[in-house]
Amino acid sequence: MEKKIGIIGTGNMGKALGKLLADHNYEVFLGSRDLEKGKQVAEELGANVQGGSIAEAAEFGGIVILAVHYGVVAEALAAAGPLAGKTVIDIVNPLTPDFSGLAVGHTSSAAEETAALIPDAKVVKAFNYAFASTFQNENAFSPEKATMFYCGDDADAKADIDMIISDIGFDPVDAGPLQNARYLEPLAMLIIQLGFAQKMGTCIAFKLLRR
Amino acid sequence: MEKKIGIIGTGNMGKALGKLLADHNYEVFLGSRDLEKGKQVAEELGANVQGGSIAEAAEFGGIVILAVHYGVVAEALAAAGPLAGKTVIDIVNPLTPDFSGLAVGHTSSAAEETAALIPDAKVVKAFNYAFASTFQNENAFSPEKATMFYCGDDADAKADIDMIISDIGFDPVDAGPLQNARYLEPLAMLIIQLGFAQKMGTCIAFKLLRR
Repeated sequence: MEKKIGIIGTGNMGKALGKLLADHNYEVFLGSRDLEKGKQVAEELGANVQGGSIAEAAEFGGIVILAVHYGVVAEALAAAGPLAGKTVIDIVNPLTPDFSGLAVGHTSSAAEETAALIPDAKVVKAFNYAFASTFQNENAFSPEKATMFYCGDDADAKADIDMIISDIGFDPVDAGPLQNARYLEPLAMLIIQLGFAQKMGTCIAFKLLRR
Repeated sequence: MEKKIGIIGTGNMGKALGKLLADHNYEVFLGSRDLEKGKQVAEELGANVQGGSIAEAAEFGGIVILAVHYGVVAEALAAAGPLAGKTVIDIVNPLTPDFSGLAVGHTSSAAEETAALIPDAKVVKAFNYAFASTFQNENAFSPEKATMFYCGDDADAKADIDMIISDIGFDPVDAGPLQNARYLEPLAMLIIQLGFAQKMGTCIAFKLLRR
């Protein structure tokens, strides 16, 4: 199991995921388009976290988390360089610039667009509908676990993401092929609406009940 | 609180909801485009359930549950007749005929289309992403409760649906304006994918975790 993870993006999600992964003995590399910012954020996060450029983050390990705004995905991927054979965990939601909706809908998804841009990488969709606070407070819902759905088309990449999710204390559920990002992305809009417009705050998450 | 509920549609969802509501002392009227089928299904369901035509179901009480296939919504609403001032609970998902996707996406939703067809009714979206089995086995997830998100633009209609959801043993969560059906409808596609393509079965449901 690959324990080296590069994260493209140093926003709330990238930092929260990076910290949680590092706390669970992953080696993390945070990449920013501003190399100095990448280094600085890594220093803030402490042990097991390095930082620098996007290209360095992409090169760092076999797994790359894409954690940038939808509008700069193409730019970030260009800066990343070769990603052939890597597992790319796409947590991007195609939010419109004012965050009021999804910029792409049922006929596509941000995950599929990403996969088309890097056809030889193994893209999985995951973590896209969780608030950063979910990752910031590991036992937030103890003794219950939040469910993290993921989807993708590559079995190995899915095995990776499944184990990662377990490792960081959540309940992984395989939600099928990458195309199903079309249904995970709207889930993000739902939780955003609940958290902000409905004022439930960001200490909320989804759990899949089973019997 | 209105205890008389008409249900348009006698499929799995209409029947399961009707039974559960009746078990909780609601008076239920199931309407079918085949009047005799409506009567027959009602008889099967037993106490507190009547049946007949769609127009009768629509006329029965202040609350109407629209539980038909997406393709026949316009036809069912025409058969219903006047719905002015009524609360219409829209559980329809805009599934494509082969159930492989959503026929309408982020720029609209089945709920909004329905609301446009009956502009003087109070449309709320609810129950659309739960499997019928969720309603068939009330304590399926005991001691946990499945969350039922609902959305709509009318405060009174939302107060109604909130109480209904509580009454039948679920956790109601206000998901905002009707437009947010755009995010509840894809949730249905997600659970369909999990239940069938991913073979998790239909004994699954969503719960919103909070702290």
